[in-house]
Amino acid sequence: MNFCSQCGARVSLKVPAGDALPRFVCDACATIHYQNPKLIVGCIPEWEDRILLCRRAIEPRRGLWTLPAGFMENGETTMAGAARETLEEANARVNVMQLFAVYNIPHISQVYVLFRARLLDLDYSAGEESLEVRLFTEHEVPWDEIAFATVRNTLTHYFDDRRLGHFGMHVGTIETPSRATAR
Amino acid sequence: MNFCSQCGARVSLKVPAGDALPRFVCDACATIHYQNPKLIVGCIPEWEDRILLCRRAIEPRRGLWTLPAGFMENGETTMAGAARETLEEANARVNVMQLFAVYNIPHISQVYVLFRARLLDLDYSAGEESLEVRLFTEHEVPWDEIAFATVRNTLTHYFDDRRLGHFGMHVGTIETPSRATAR
Repeated sequence: MNFCSQCGARVSLKVPAGDALPRFVCDACATIHYQNPKLIVGCIPEWEDRILLCRRAIEPRRGLWTLPAGFMENGETTMAGAARETLEEANARVNVMQLFAVYNIPHISQVYVLFRARLLDLDYSAGEESLEVRLFTEHEVPWDEIAFATVRNTLTHYFDDRRLGHFGMHVGTIETPSRATAR
Repeated sequence: MNFCSQCGARVSLKVPAGDALPRFVCDACATIHYQNPKLIVGCIPEWEDRILLCRRAIEPRRGLWTLPAGFMENGETTMAGAARETLEEANARVNVMQLFAVYNIPHISQVYVLFRARLLDLDYSAGEESLEVRLFTEHEVPWDEIAFATVRNTLTHYFDDRRLGHFGMHVGTIETPSRATAR
């Protein structure tokens, strides 16, 4: 950030009065420009014993498989955002059911919020950001071609919970791109 | 938003190619400035059968009672943010335990993420944004002087769950300032 989005003057990085962290503050109008983590919302779309994955048509991790998920928009709920992303990436209509996982990724200031969802029909297809969309049983999941640690952890917990007959809530932190922990 | 924070030129509201929503786009350098919902993280700090509330020293709702909570910062986890806000607003040290509530407030593009937390000692006091900090049993809670619908809903679920002997996960949506629904 170099310029004030309100008045167009230069900004400086400084700690405002009463604050503890440096912020971009406008040299002219004194507006403080806070920068905050972003929410990624998405679904685990279920159809009988299978779940829907999307093969990414965009970077990062083009060609690898992921759950339908993306940046939450202003004015929507986490559930509405998860359904919208599933429609956009997989042309799939879902009934969003249960909050299943919340993952912190502090090194990129993101929080993933993922829901279990029921596919309403089999009329899905690849959206603009997907190369391919497919239903997978647990044993068909391409574990070596999963795009993100959040998705790998979520799927592992999902199938573990399903075997136990009870879906829990999973909160975890992805510490670095190469090391993932979850509880 | 009037000016590009990257180059200082004017921005226009337009739908970028491949997008579905209008965004602020720089007329000069074409940077797209996305605006996304903000996360509010906080705690229900517990001490035996009591919970800690803060009386707000700042607007909105100055003088009313709330749970310690505030905007999540870049680079931290939801749990770390919840503990930090509790330290800032109540000078209280907590062990963050269990994710308890996620509330959507779409009309102001906020998502509340609240955790159960255990107070580590009784050495708490009002932080800069609080007039007063106090422990309350269920029957002492000032129900008519609670600052926000999110806090009222969270406390109601909390005491209900405690009576049942099992703390669940609560996902809800605050539709308007005057009408609250939760499940």
